[in-house]
Amino acid sequence: MQTLWDHRYAHRIQRMGSSAVRELLKLTEKPDLISFGGGLPAPDVFPVDEIADACQRVLRDMGARALQYGTTEGYLPLREMIARHTRRYGINVTPDNILITSGSQQALDLLGKIFINRGDRILLESPTYLGAIQAWNAYGAEYVPVASDKNGMITEALDERLRTGPKFIYVLPNFQNPTGVTLSLERRHHLVELADRYGVPIIEDDPYGQLRYEGEHLPAVVVIDGEYRGSPENPYSGNVIYLSTFSKTLAPGLRLAWVIAPQEVIRKLVQAKQGADLHTATFNQIVAYEVAKGGFLDRHVHMIRRIYKERRDAMLAAMDSYFPPGIDWTQPQGGLFLWGTLPEDMRSADVLEIAIKQKVAFVPGGPFYPCGGGHNTMRLNFSYATPETIREGILRMGKAIRQSMK
Amino acid sequence: MQTLWDHRYAHRIQRMGSSAVRELLKLTEKPDLISFGGGLPAPDVFPVDEIADACQRVLRDMGARALQYGTTEGYLPLREMIARHTRRYGINVTPDNILITSGSQQALDLLGKIFINRGDRILLESPTYLGAIQAWNAYGAEYVPVASDKNGMITEALDERLRTGPKFIYVLPNFQNPTGVTLSLERRHHLVELADRYGVPIIEDDPYGQLRYEGEHLPAVVVIDGEYRGSPENPYSGNVIYLSTFSKTLAPGLRLAWVIAPQEVIRKLVQAKQGADLHTATFNQIVAYEVAKGGFLDRHVHMIRRIYKERRDAMLAAMDSYFPPGIDWTQPQGGLFLWGTLPEDMRSADVLEIAIKQKVAFVPGGPFYPCGGGHNTMRLNFSYATPETIREGILRMGKAIRQSMK
Repeated sequence: MQTLWDHRYAHRIQRMGSSAVRELLKLTEKPDLISFGGGLPAPDVFPVDEIADACQRVLRDMGARALQYGTTEGYLPLREMIARHTRRYGINVTPDNILITSGSQQALDLLGKIFINRGDRILLESPTYLGAIQAWNAYGAEYVPVASDKNGMITEALDERLRTGPKFIYVLPNFQNPTGVTLSLERRHHLVELADRYGVPIIEDDPYGQLRYEGEHLPAVVVIDGEYRGSPENPYSGNVIYLSTFSKTLAPGLRLAWVIAPQEVIRKLVQAKQGADLHTATFNQIVAYEVAKGGFLDRHVHMIRRIYKERRDAMLAAMDSYFPPGIDWTQPQGGLFLWGTLPEDMRSADVLEIAIKQKVAFVPGGPFYPCGGGHNTMRLNFSYATPETIREGILRMGKAIRQSMK
Repeated sequence: MQTLWDHRYAHRIQRMGSSAVRELLKLTEKPDLISFGGGLPAPDVFPVDEIADACQRVLRDMGARALQYGTTEGYLPLREMIARHTRRYGINVTPDNILITSGSQQALDLLGKIFINRGDRILLESPTYLGAIQAWNAYGAEYVPVASDKNGMITEALDERLRTGPKFIYVLPNFQNPTGVTLSLERRHHLVELADRYGVPIIEDDPYGQLRYEGEHLPAVVVIDGEYRGSPENPYSGNVIYLSTFSKTLAPGLRLAWVIAPQEVIRKLVQAKQGADLHTATFNQIVAYEVAKGGFLDRHVHMIRRIYKERRDAMLAAMDSYFPPGIDWTQPQGGLFLWGTLPEDMRSADVLEIAIKQKVAFVPGGPFYPCGGGHNTMRLNFSYATPETIREGILRMGKAIRQSMK
């Protein structure tokens, strides 16, 4: 039905469909349903007491400041702490290279706002993070997909795609959402070299980098870019814009993340953020700083890793036991997700329909493909449910898949 | 100097200059300088103890929920509370008519995102709120300015401007930022009628409506629109999108505001907000609800009114005493700002230069004019400084103006 408002919306809203995944997840919010659908951290790992203590201290000692308007750039001590933390990894950043955002989703939106003209091409992994596509659709982005395998984005396929003149490359190198795969060291170097050769910047989205459960830490793409450029004495001025977040190490409900970029890019992002929400909540920034400043997050992340590793192991073991032959899945070394592939002739949406009757849910993989495809794929989250619940849920999923195969 | 990044920015960023006012305010952040420049609430009125208590209760009783991801629409009990509060004024809204935003600035950004195509015309008061211009410049808006007098937007001038086919009308009817003037009841009716006749929606921005220090409360434009339409039994489906905020009644550092709109518009805003920041901080929403739910804000606002009235009175009296003849200023019945007009041959920027040497600052009015003008105008904030400081600051400003007149 045509309504009074229909003719008033901007062109861009036509492409801005509601996230199919978010709509689906609403259907699965039933108490007896086991959901592997969301991307939620386990509430067990939220440092509730530490946050409560910090709230009290902050309001007692600097309430007037914590509740007042703040600068768009973000709370300086928090940016200084992030700069110190980042320098440990060999990226020579100052607070002027850092912008605090209201979650990484806002960083993606602001990057779209400052960089994307209608029709600009973005080179990205396929499948990739849905929120990036949703943010950039609003600015009229087109996508040039690059397939990935168990070593992440297939950089061997980049060369010809870089000749299409993309605005930037978007990559999630660690335990990617949705696939859980990690970009190999070799390919990180390859990516940096190619991006430099074609003069195309990289946006490195790294929400899960701290959540590695096995294997060696790999240097971030931004670090490799710095080495490649060889000017570590300067404030950061490389070819990579790096995003990270407190959502997975502290708590998503505070909506706190950050961008690391050359200072001139930060200045543009600050202008865009002034118009978007003035600044991120002062109170949340100061509380996060107070919780994190004594090295608490380093210790806390150990605990998160232990709990999530156990859950990942439970899911992988249960899949080995309960899934029928012919199904493939990734073996993530960290993060929150793994990725399943059904036989070509199956549709994961059909499996989901049966699965929901079995009281278990997951996300069909199709929406994560920016240019279509992936009808037989699915994303499973292993961070939210307990190991026992995971086993029961995978058992149910195994039944649903078998039923769907008949 | 041309940098590596210059050719990469989107067209829209060219128009997205950093707020001249915000840059200016940075210069005035000196401890011995009296600033009437910002738009800050007085920190004395922040309910620090109530917020501290609420933080403790929320984290103790529902920490896992308060720190987790939430829905894009916002925390349901908070939306229900806002709906109840709004119905008191005769607008028949349900929670489905309400979206929680990260400050009203985000509401302006999201409205721009869903409505404005490049070149669309927005009809607005001149001068008007700078943040709206900044948000909408990013979407390529053009502006059709309407002058205002001491009764607000001169609606008598609307008719011919509405024939230019504007996308919407933007108006701040109560104690407008920057002028402090209030749209008269007669003009509110006239505005609603004209907007309806031409089929142009109204965006009513009302951050200060609760902060009236004298005179009768006037019905909001959204209320008049509802009466005009005469279907109060339905959920809200009128021609007005209404914005308000907790920034002036609770605390700006929490970044909490809301939009009231027909449900179909809310659905579009929700899609846009998913891509912009997923949702507003869960913790802040629940804490605000816990502080406000027992009617605390109604009582608290009485206190704020008393304090701000005293400050407004102090500023008006001091201007009477210390300003030379030939200067005009508004007599706001509420809000945070008043507006001064120097003789035509003076420039408020010149006065500011001298004023800063006298250790007092204000904001020159020019930037608030969407299409230029206002070289001899200035905005003064009276909410932040104490009455004694206000008197001293106005004394210094009087000297600066006299000096500038020579």
